Amino acid sequence: MTHELIENTFFQYFGNDVLNRADDAAVFSANRGDIAFTTDSFVVKPLFFPGGDIGKLSVCGTVNDLVVCGAEPRYISCGFIIEEGFDKSDLVKVIMSMAYWANEAGVKVVTGDTKVVGRGAADRLFINTSGIGLFKSDLRLGVGKINEGDKVIITGTIGEHGIAVLSKREGLEFESRIMSDCAPLNKMLMNVLDETGGIKFMRDPTRGGLATTLNEIVICGNFGILLEEEKIPISDSVRAACALLGLDPLYIANEGKALLIADASCEKKVLELLRKHAYGRNAETIGEITKDNVNMVRLKTRYGVTRMVDMLSGEPMPRIC
Amino acid sequence: MTHELIENTFFQYFGNDVLNRADDAAVFSANRGDIAFTTDSFVVKPLFFPGGDIGKLSVCGTVNDLVVCGAEPRYISCGFIIEEGFDKSDLVKVIMSMAYWANEAGVKVVTGDTKVVGRGAADRLFINTSGIGLFKSDLRLGVGKINEGDKVIITGTIGEHGIAVLSKREGLEFESRIMSDCAPLNKMLMNVLDETGGIKFMRDPTRGGLATTLNEIVICGNFGILLEEEKIPISDSVRAACALLGLDPLYIANEGKALLIADASCEKKVLELLRKHAYGRNAETIGEITKDNVNMVRLKTRYGVTRMVDMLSGEPMPRIC
Repeated sequence: MTHELIENTFFQYFGNDVLNRADDAAVFSANRGDIAFTTDSFVVKPLFFPGGDIGKLSVCGTVNDLVVCGAEPRYISCGFIIEEGFDKSDLVKVIMSMAYWANEAGVKVVTGDTKVVGRGAADRLFINTSGIGLFKSDLRLGVGKINEGDKVIITGTIGEHGIAVLSKREGLEFESRIMSDCAPLNKMLMNVLDETGGIKFMRDPTRGGLATTLNEIVICGNFGILLEEEKIPISDSVRAACALLGLDPLYIANEGKALLIADASCEKKVLELLRKHAYGRNAETIGEITKDNVNMVRLKTRYGVTRMVDMLSGEPMPRIC
Repeated sequence: MTHELIENTFFQYFGNDVLNRADDAAVFSANRGDIAFTTDSFVVKPLFFPGGDIGKLSVCGTVNDLVVCGAEPRYISCGFIIEEGFDKSDLVKVIMSMAYWANEAGVKVVTGDTKVVGRGAADRLFINTSGIGLFKSDLRLGVGKINEGDKVIITGTIGEHGIAVLSKREGLEFESRIMSDCAPLNKMLMNVLDETGGIKFMRDPTRGGLATTLNEIVICGNFGILLEEEKIPISDSVRAACALLGLDPLYIANEGKALLIADASCEKKVLELLRKHAYGRNAETIGEITKDNVNMVRLKTRYGVTRMVDMLSGEPMPRIC
């Protein structure tokens, strides 16, 4: 019965020409050449949080993973693992949210799977989304393209997602108006890629935050990064919540921000394009690539002192690849 | 620490040119045109069972979903959801098994993700695999190609997977030498597709078994299916276990069998090719497509009586698409 409901709900909200063929696999054309392929499982708790829910997160997360590679996100799969007894209206809400955000992002949910497990065998709902993106040109991004003097740009204020989720977690609830920044960045970032030639690298600083992502980048390269603390956009409310909780906003997860490394010559153009977009209004250049201090991320504080920004040891590292 | 272990283990066993780029998404060429895309989550319990484990299952399941569409399976993603405290040596065993079977099947694991959830938030280990297959030709399979007189062929004995898993389930353990039939069918089926022109449709009869899959097919078409009970290959041990448990083998899951619907003119050739292969030794024609009894699956018993084979009501239907 549950399966019938799910099936109907899926087709109702995700209906598109590829999905409706009702085969074991979705079939579509990828004539344009290279494709990008990514996967992510979502286990966020609570399922609904200020500014989003697990469904929105699962679509945006996979869309953003594709676009930061320079690929245009096109097709998404979704795999649901549902705990027996999970509220059906919550499930419908999640599916509607996925459908809404897939439509917003311009991607199609083309194949899916649901498994219902016994009570206690899963915590309500887990979602896996895998995604396929197509490359529009031969342009490829990569750490190998980064050079001394390149600018490090963030598309907006940091820390909102992590703080929004924490604020609703059992045992830790606190009053806050902070909303998750969860958003599909593909339209904004594809526009920047199309209109400027100097983007070297992009990455979405999710789990582990800006500091972790920057450390992952310098580890792979032959350069350092010097940040300017004053330039890093952080809202007053995130700053206050972090002070209250004893957290460093540099390590808090974002779900609607991208880090861009761009040739200095196109810095202005990149910022201009980003700031025109709703998801990039607070874009800022926050640092630059240095030849010295290889493999290190350093931060020039507002008092002129420079300190190291470490990989948070003990922080769960999300990426296996 | 766990993440570091996983990361190392993944790269150690899944190492390939696409995976090692360590980006957010895997990038590869799909110049040949149409691609097939599928996803499946695996929540099997127990994780290790006679003839297989969740890792082997997750690779074979996705490989088989692609090949039954007529696509050559090429790239696989894997998403792990791991319960905190899950035994590391078991995890390594599962990853090794995935790597072994991916290699056997000739597919590459190109992207992955792991999430660790708290104790009690998941039942040990869940795996999602999504897969991409490429079409070698313009040949497309589909229910729409099926005609009266076409032959219904199964690649071997049915029911082994379901019975093997049941035999190890807590509270139901019974003595049995039945092994899961879990296997990657792509090489065998691609060979049949390449060598014969008359395959109309293929499907792997997994959850819900042969009866459910056949019913799913007739519902989509304008024809009926008449099976001959005597022809359906079932091992004595599966027959005995089903009698003991009060189960009908037609409804028991398979993980290494495919159902083929082929033009009568190539029936012999198909059987000959299948039987040459280790996974197809017991292939049999078990029935044919009829013009009458539209949307119905019927079974001619060994006593000459014909009865309906229903969709098992209340049986969880695995497919959402």
